[in-house]
Amino acid sequence: MHLTEKKGGQRHMKNVAVIGGAGYAGIELVRYLLGHPGFDLVAVTSDQDAGTALAELYPALTGRTDLAFVGHGVVDGMAELDAAFLAVPHTAAMEMAPALLGRGICVFDLSADFRLKDAAVYERFYGARHSAPELLAQAVYGLPEVNRPLLKQQAQGREGTPASVPRSALVACPGCYPTASTLALAPALAAGFAAEGTAVVNAVSGVSGAGRTPRQGNHFCSANENVNAYGVATHRHLPEIAQVLAWQAGRRVPVVFTPHLAPLTRGLLATATLPLGPGACARALEDAYGAAYEEETFVQLLPYGTMPRTASVVGTNNAQVGIVLDEGNNVLVASCAIDNLGKGAASQAVQCANIVFGFEEAQGLVTNPGVV
Amino acid sequence: MHLTEKKGGQRHMKNVAVIGGAGYAGIELVRYLLGHPGFDLVAVTSDQDAGTALAELYPALTGRTDLAFVGHGVVDGMAELDAAFLAVPHTAAMEMAPALLGRGICVFDLSADFRLKDAAVYERFYGARHSAPELLAQAVYGLPEVNRPLLKQQAQGREGTPASVPRSALVACPGCYPTASTLALAPALAAGFAAEGTAVVNAVSGVSGAGRTPRQGNHFCSANENVNAYGVATHRHLPEIAQVLAWQAGRRVPVVFTPHLAPLTRGLLATATLPLGPGACARALEDAYGAAYEEETFVQLLPYGTMPRTASVVGTNNAQVGIVLDEGNNVLVASCAIDNLGKGAASQAVQCANIVFGFEEAQGLVTNPGVV
Amino acid sequence: MHLTEKKGGQRHMKNVAVIGGAGYAGIELVRYLLGHPGFDLVAVTSDQDAGTALAELYPALTGRTDLAFVGHGVVDGMAELDAAFLAVPHTAAMEMAPALLGRGICVFDLSADFRLKDAAVYERFYGARHSAPELLAQAVYGLPEVNRPLLKQQAQGREGTPASVPRSALVACPGCYPTASTLALAPALAAGFAAEGTAVVNAVSGVSGAGRTPRQGNHFCSANENVNAYGVATHRHLPEIAQVLAWQAGRRVPVVFTPHLAPLTRGLLATATLPLGPGACARALEDAYGAAYEEETFVQLLPYGTMPRTASVVGTNNAQVGIVLDEGNNVLVASCAIDNLGKGAASQAVQCANIVFGFEEAQGLVTNPGVV
Amino acid sequence: MHLTEKKGGQRHMKNVAVIGGAGYAGIELVRYLLGHPGFDLVAVTSDQDAGTALAELYPALTGRTDLAFVGHGVVDGMAELDAAFLAVPHTAAMEMAPALLGRGICVFDLSADFRLKDAAVYERFYGARHSAPELLAQAVYGLPEVNRPLLKQQAQGREGTPASVPRSALVACPGCYPTASTLALAPALAAGFAAEGTAVVNAVSGVSGAGRTPRQGNHFCSANENVNAYGVATHRHLPEIAQVLAWQAGRRVPVVFTPHLAPLTRGLLATATLPLGPGACARALEDAYGAAYEEETFVQLLPYGTMPRTASVVGTNNAQVGIVLDEGNNVLVASCAIDNLGKGAASQAVQCANIVFGFEEAQGLVTNPGVV
Repeated sequence: MHLTEKKGGQRHMKNVAVIGGAGYAGIELVRYLLGHPGFDLVAVTSDQDAGTALAELYPALTGRTDLAFVGHGVVDGMAELDAAFLAVPHTAAMEMAPALLGRGICVFDLSADFRLKDAAVYERFYGARHSAPELLAQAVYGLPEVNRPLLKQQAQGREGTPASVPRSALVACPGCYPTASTLALAPALAAGFAAEGTAVVNAVSGVSGAGRTPRQGNHFCSANENVNAYGVATHRHLPEIAQVLAWQAGRRVPVVFTPHLAPLTRGLLATATLPLGPGACARALEDAYGAAYEEETFVQLLPYGTMPRTASVVGTNNAQVGIVLDEGNNVLVASCAIDNLGKGAASQAVQCANIVFGFEEAQGLVTNPGVV
Repeated sequence: MHLTEKKGGQRHMKNVAVIGGAGYAGIELVRYLLGHPGFDLVAVTSDQDAGTALAELYPALTGRTDLAFVGHGVVDGMAELDAAFLAVPHTAAMEMAPALLGRGICVFDLSADFRLKDAAVYERFYGARHSAPELLAQAVYGLPEVNRPLLKQQAQGREGTPASVPRSALVACPGCYPTASTLALAPALAAGFAAEGTAVVNAVSGVSGAGRTPRQGNHFCSANENVNAYGVATHRHLPEIAQVLAWQAGRRVPVVFTPHLAPLTRGLLATATLPLGPGACARALEDAYGAAYEEETFVQLLPYGTMPRTASVVGTNNAQVGIVLDEGNNVLVASCAIDNLGKGAASQAVQCANIVFGFEEAQGLVTNPGVV
Repeated sequence: MHLTEKKGGQRHMKNVAVIGGAGYAGIELVRYLLGHPGFDLVAVTSDQDAGTALAELYPALTGRTDLAFVGHGVVDGMAELDAAFLAVPHTAAMEMAPALLGRGICVFDLSADFRLKDAAVYERFYGARHSAPELLAQAVYGLPEVNRPLLKQQAQGREGTPASVPRSALVACPGCYPTASTLALAPALAAGFAAEGTAVVNAVSGVSGAGRTPRQGNHFCSANENVNAYGVATHRHLPEIAQVLAWQAGRRVPVVFTPHLAPLTRGLLATATLPLGPGACARALEDAYGAAYEEETFVQLLPYGTMPRTASVVGTNNAQVGIVLDEGNNVLVASCAIDNLGKGAASQAVQCANIVFGFEEAQGLVTNPGVV
Repeated sequence: MHLTEKKGGQRHMKNVAVIGGAGYAGIELVRYLLGHPGFDLVAVTSDQDAGTALAELYPALTGRTDLAFVGHGVVDGMAELDAAFLAVPHTAAMEMAPALLGRGICVFDLSADFRLKDAAVYERFYGARHSAPELLAQAVYGLPEVNRPLLKQQAQGREGTPASVPRSALVACPGCYPTASTLALAPALAAGFAAEGTAVVNAVSGVSGAGRTPRQGNHFCSANENVNAYGVATHRHLPEIAQVLAWQAGRRVPVVFTPHLAPLTRGLLATATLPLGPGACARALEDAYGAAYEEETFVQLLPYGTMPRTASVVGTNNAQVGIVLDEGNNVLVASCAIDNLGKGAASQAVQCANIVFGFEEAQGLVTNPGVV
């Protein structure tokens, strides 16, 4: 219906679909895309919930949309789809992406399948053979604050490409922990302040980060009134963090990464320590971070010494960053708060899509969440 | 600056101020007014926090507004103010309202000072003499779903009034419990289904309902992992509930009201039972509620038998209502979920202001909160 | 090993098993029985977790017990078992009880299978045919505060019975909602204060009440920051509440019962309203409640007008009760807080077992939980 | 009354008082001491709440104790006091301790006043001049797992001292963060596995750690659904951690310490990373930790690779420790969970008192908290 209605119209909205829309990241994509003036959400798929109204699964959407979930296969027959947001589990995404790209559809993949440049590392951490390794080089890691030029190039590439070349872009949207870890440390690494030592990233995530499928670990009585570390030295976001920190530093950066679970629905905090070289001082750090983020709409550097609260960014695409120099140890302590489903997943994907489709980068992303 | 800039302009935005903007209802007003296309938020007052940036007290507003709190007195000198939202404690509002009205400024009072028509009842429940009882008759109880005609009349009155008459309107915005209780029961009462017996309203509120001032009772360790009733038979919202239910029924409705506190930041649920007369049946109730709410943007009647979740309305101006007929007892069980700071306070005030100023009723109120 | 060791000994401890010990009520039974001086916990069964150490499933038990779960069948071969606590789902309990009773083993059934005296009501509300209806009359409803004489009679019966009669007792341990509802209303009903009208019970339960099996509804992100009613007019505890209130009143008491879910791990609050007859006054109510509970170890009547907090009873066998007379409506408002897993399940079962086995009623039940 | 009653009796219980008993650590001391077979709790002081029953302030104590708070001064006149637990703010403790010690009363100080050996460091971090620096050398740091010999020496000293020497002991009970941090790292440091680099300790505490006085930061709506770091590089527990880690390592250990607040009432998790020297391997670490803790009643080493949950230790004196070797970086990741009010404050003080008074170390400390 939506598609039909637009076919005859003279319009510049882009038709988009969310593949795997019943999960938390998927429905958060729906939330942002419903309010986006440049994207028309034409399909939300879920094989498991096909036929169910979105508002039935998520009653908060009552009155906001009449869409119902359709099966994944419905997308195959859609003639005028401009982009697909993949919110399916890893391995499923790499099965779907090639065909979509072949049809000239831009793919914004929220799974991990195209984040790592090295298929061998993927296979080690994800325990699965990569079925489309030839796409890894072409995939753009979608963290606009560090990769905006490459994302913009996709946009230009798409405009100017000859007819024989698929006009589609493949954006690998970052994981939640890598997003926060990178935004905490990138300016110091890029400015060359780091010494040789090991970066230590401790992070705390809300329970929505573990997905919507009921499990013992996300049972209310298990997660409530509890904090614990998990996935020490083995978490799948570790190589992704190492990869993007290395890009920033221009060299390998040793990272110890320890994620924790805390009793929040949403919100993610990464607190990182980075040993600094002789030249670093509080003022220089402040300047480097200020310069890195002053033009960024979605990253807010707090006054030196003020640490961010996850509550301040929940429901938004914002990242808030705070830094302190531990002078006695000459170690930077940087903390970054994001919404794991927002800047850590769905809204960051939309931010990338805005860039790739030539919209204003903040289009549809300046939300107005409760601040209490 | 905001004011200056607009003085020269050709525009139709209304200048509004939030008086008492540092508390939870006040800052929620700010949230809605910042995103409202018809209102220009020119001042947010707080004697205690004057000089502090809003974003310093509420870091979630970083990048959203440069406003700083000003003292209440600043409003006295504002020449072109169209409306004031009073989010001050009761008794303070009745001191401020007359002067504002005298200056032709519309007053949307979120305190309890103008809700009760009978000053004696006010004085009994609030323990204070009413200083402006002459305004009680004129004040419009701002629950649009039951009082829209009166609110619209304010708008018309304002347009057509002769110069000698102050063009200002006084809207008494409802309490959070009365809002939810009324929306749960009004259609059954208005349709004449109720028998003679006592309505029983049990309600559960999130902790933000108790205000921002730190007290033992809203200490995290006191409120967390706890539920308790409070204010039994004496809560200040009791006479307000009784007053508005009586309007609906056309007769006095005996009400037992028991509010509870639960470990939520936001959200309020009122579950009411109402003894029914002989003619009532599930179908008739469904029809009455359906008819009452089908044109309402902000009240969503759930399918018969489905009870609302507070999580579904948090961050919105929505109320979700569910009904069940307990056939064995011929008693209606109706439950209504609202955001105590939204439909129960700030956004409902804006909804009233939209009506009074002739804007679309949903202007600036269709938010897009996280649904997970 | 435990059993063997004791065989040769001269001792008076009773050997007990928990059947279905991996769920929340089961493990709470384990908690109380491990610390009980009169019971020796010889087996904890779980077909699903057989072979797993209790401390592996519940790390808080590390260092407290070396027991591992065994299959249900292991209990069949235990020669010297004195009592079995059934913490299995309904229908499973009625399959197991007859054989246990036949072996002379006392059964404390925490399921619903023997609570209702009328098999037809059971079948209507539980949707299953009762396989042992002949035991319903003999089963003692295990709410000591209202049924202590019958429980004591079990003890005496057990001592003095001739050899041909099985010495076993069958105790149907009450549901969590009925326990709190009854303790809130029983003294007023027993004293004859109630008028003809309908009692309205609204209750709020923590999420552990819904069991340990992961489901969408007990996912942290679903239960957190949410309150909702459920099971309106159909909840399985409704006929049980009606049955026990009728015992107290000596006549049928119409009850509207509406349970709610709130974001707590443990804790249950029942707030009940009861229309009163002409003679009732605050003093008389206070006296009746005072008299009913002054000798009760586990029910604490709070000062008139003080309402109980669930946090005050979590981790204990205590019930705290508060009452207020709504004088305008001549309606009693009574609120009772319990731990749904304690007085609402496991510790109340142990309290019953203490009575049946002739131990001091508070044996092993005076816990010392954190009060913050 | 309590005192009088005992004066005539032939008994060996020790009379103890809690000074500053109305706060969270104080009332947790009360909880443990009420159930302790060797200590008789004769007074609980609070200048602010003098005259109020403990059970009025903490309704969970209803039926557990009839004690009421008395003013601090009441302790001055108590003739037969054996020990005082100081749960007063820092600086208040150092004012009280000398007089108590002078009267031969053992002092277990839960404040920070006697933890640091260097008065200058105290003055730098606590912003106050130390009024009893001469006691710092004598004070024993009360972490039994690393300081048991010194604590036992107090006991022996007390028994054998000549009449002229005060028989009193001064125990400086550790802070919550230092307790968890030390238990996480001590075995590796004591075994000499650490390389030269910086230890990084990230910790997460429940809100009760911030005290009972209502403040904006412990308002439910501020702490709920939020995580943030605070006190970076300046937290008062930092020098205490450094001091005790240095004792273990036999040399200065550089430490970066970043505490966080999470929405829990109780529970504290410290996750520490420690760069290791060439010889370390998983097996060697496991052996060292196993050897260090196998005889400890209150420290439970989890299987290698299993990380502790704070929920598993809440309400107990237990610490649970998990370790993982990050082989790629040759860095130990160790995590320790405690109850900040238990092992992090009150129950650890009682553990020390057990040692000093020659009781069994676990006396009164094997609690049975809910495990769900």
